[in-house]
Amino acid sequence: MQKSLQTQAGAGAAPPGRRFLLKGGIAATGATLLGAAAARAAAQPDAPPAAPPADPDWSRSLGPGVDDRPYGQPSHFEKDVIRRNVPWLTAGTQSSVSFTPLQHQDGIITANGLFFERYHAGRPTVDPAQHRLMIHGMVDRPLLLDIEDLRRFPSESRIHFIECPANGGMEWRGAQLNSLQFTHGMIGCAEWTGVRLSTLFGETGIKPGAAWVLAEGADGAHMDRSIPLAKCLDDCMVIYGQNGEALRPEQGYPMRLLVPGWQGNINVKWLRRLQIGTQPWFTREETAQYTESMPDGMARAFTWAIYAKSVVTFPCPERPMKGAGLYEIRGLAWSGNGRISRVDISTDGGITWRPATLQPPVLSKALTRFTAEWRWDGKPAMVQSRAVDETGFVQPTIAQLRAIRGTSPIYNNNSIQTWQVKADGSVFNVQLS
Amino acid sequence: MQKSLQTQAGAGAAPPGRRFLLKGGIAATGATLLGAAAARAAAQPDAPPAAPPADPDWSRSLGPGVDDRPYGQPSHFEKDVIRRNVPWLTAGTQSSVSFTPLQHQDGIITANGLFFERYHAGRPTVDPAQHRLMIHGMVDRPLLLDIEDLRRFPSESRIHFIECPANGGMEWRGAQLNSLQFTHGMIGCAEWTGVRLSTLFGETGIKPGAAWVLAEGADGAHMDRSIPLAKCLDDCMVIYGQNGEALRPEQGYPMRLLVPGWQGNINVKWLRRLQIGTQPWFTREETAQYTESMPDGMARAFTWAIYAKSVVTFPCPERPMKGAGLYEIRGLAWSGNGRISRVDISTDGGITWRPATLQPPVLSKALTRFTAEWRWDGKPAMVQSRAVDETGFVQPTIAQLRAIRGTSPIYNNNSIQTWQVKADGSVFNVQLS
Repeated sequence: MQKSLQTQAGAGAAPPGRRFLLKGGIAATGATLLGAAAARAAAQPDAPPAAPPADPDWSRSLGPGVDDRPYGQPSHFEKDVIRRNVPWLTAGTQSSVSFTPLQHQDGIITANGLFFERYHAGRPTVDPAQHRLMIHGMVDRPLLLDIEDLRRFPSESRIHFIECPANGGMEWRGAQLNSLQFTHGMIGCAEWTGVRLSTLFGETGIKPGAAWVLAEGADGAHMDRSIPLAKCLDDCMVIYGQNGEALRPEQGYPMRLLVPGWQGNINVKWLRRLQIGTQPWFTREETAQYTESMPDGMARAFTWAIYAKSVVTFPCPERPMKGAGLYEIRGLAWSGNGRISRVDISTDGGITWRPATLQPPVLSKALTRFTAEWRWDGKPAMVQSRAVDETGFVQPTIAQLRAIRGTSPIYNNNSIQTWQVKADGSVFNVQLS
Repeated sequence: MQKSLQTQAGAGAAPPGRRFLLKGGIAATGATLLGAAAARAAAQPDAPPAAPPADPDWSRSLGPGVDDRPYGQPSHFEKDVIRRNVPWLTAGTQSSVSFTPLQHQDGIITANGLFFERYHAGRPTVDPAQHRLMIHGMVDRPLLLDIEDLRRFPSESRIHFIECPANGGMEWRGAQLNSLQFTHGMIGCAEWTGVRLSTLFGETGIKPGAAWVLAEGADGAHMDRSIPLAKCLDDCMVIYGQNGEALRPEQGYPMRLLVPGWQGNINVKWLRRLQIGTQPWFTREETAQYTESMPDGMARAFTWAIYAKSVVTFPCPERPMKGAGLYEIRGLAWSGNGRISRVDISTDGGITWRPATLQPPVLSKALTRFTAEWRWDGKPAMVQSRAVDETGFVQPTIAQLRAIRGTSPIYNNNSIQTWQVKADGSVFNVQLS
């Protein structure tokens, strides 16, 4: 067994798959840990399985039973996989953000415990028995709904991402943070369950001339945003479920607005009020906040949709390379305007590109996983991904964005991310001029 | 506002949507809680939003900040939504099961914290740094892989259910448990991420004549099952990711086998060994255990796939009806043999049937959500669902199953569930002869 395992080191004559192996050296350690009997079994292919005397503790003992954790938790070995905030980014932590550890996310679903937080007045504890959603304004029949009423309406479940438009905002002036979690972690994707606004508005009726909807939150910040009625009727929902359980407090428990593909702040959490009117309300949150200062002193306002964007999640600063050899580059792509149709990969800083493989399911306005094989020669490299969505929109470079918007917009940085891979395998956040 | 809201009680003249409303009486309470200003705004459609003086505490204060919970938890108002076990079912809790609260699951994804547990020796705490997976037997190159090696191989993410074949096993003799959680809760569905066995076997090579694979767990029970090589090469995977984070300890951290659509116990957790051979090993777990006693004294063995099955999750014993009116019947359907192609609903105990609506995405070997409108007249009813999968298999009645298998098989009860709805809205688990 030793011999055959050690030959794995010689990757030259090996079949394609084998080249992904890190090392052959784990054989000895492994055999010991698997126990003498298992090692014997390995040496004698047809030997029956035996209880290895040298088993580790967990193979020779009884663990806690099914009544130990009525609500499960991650392994303590994963204790460093957590949301993190940037202390210098905000004055305090109650109007601030924590970032999803994308460097550890597999697949397209973001675990509820790791879904990024963005608060304007901290995380309110809303009693679902007392909370009400009011729908009023230019309606035939104003409504007040509690969570029980909402759950009775026809329901739908959909997988969509929610991204804060400030995601990547710290990078406008230059590469500041050497961390995937901090450059791209203001995003998460979940299976959301709730009721279509078109269903609720069918209940209230809408008066002629109505064109806009104001959504207001029940938290201390009373976050409020104006949304075109057409978007509300197209695909917006009031959400009460997240990945198979009740909406999490950080995400607006007991109910939030879902505005698929649009900036996170418009997906008002702890939703308490929907007012129908004829024009936008020009609230503080869409005039003083969430607008982009342009070089000429003007500001772009009502920039709603998240444009096609992508990022390589391996390699990344938190997930370095480990020696030359064959690797799988992995990443996530998304668009607020529909499905991702293509992702290209470059390992030379954008000089040459090749298509990545999109992993099913490829859903509209949801994270999409892409992969691409890469044989790293151990020399310095510049790894990039470039997303294209079904509208034909191509993810731009930071230079292209700056040419139009300058360096101070804060919001809507959907530029191509460059990871510099050094000869020792370490990975750094850089920007190419 | 009061007046218009109260008119909602008269559902006769109301548009279809409105009939889903529970009551109009919530208006008064709601208005108070929303605050005087909000109520004024409601009365004056075009009044701008104002900060309501009578806001509840959570609307007038700052909550905890983004550094409060690096790993998020459900609201404490959801503290009763937990996995539960049946004390009399097993001698102890270390070889036992806890059940998923399906009555609270929205959508097709099961929350990681609520995913059912089935242990044979309790929940082991496996150190990922020490754990190894050995692949040996009739291979050209035996392998030992640690989690780091495994993560380097080409990866895939797939949404599949895992169900214990004993799910519903307590119901063979009669309706025993008045609870959806206990009649159907030994199932969960997640987005799993890992490496195909075909990739790993491409690495080791497979010797001519090989036909079976033995999978063995690293827990104290050393759970082991024989699996046809063809199934392994078709769609089996070694999993390390669950719903966007590391596999949970209850599910086999750091790695488990995924055998899509086959009985849960074959999806060996804490996977430490895959041995390739020419015939099944006839282990205790596939001879003394996980076989079905037939009326003639013989036993059905190697019954692998989960056949088409479904259950109504609303109404159910834990989710009763609340007065006559229009409701949305909701449920889940699944098949280990492919996609669900159709679900029919009956409210008269199977005398008449009508098609339910399947909610996208409808994925192979995954939970599928179905819904159907039901105007309940307030009289006693018998609610059932009947699933059909893409192979044409139709979910049977318990009487049809008993005619062939008797009343003592324990396993593979995929029969149609009947929920008896009484005039007061309460719901009971019954069986029709």
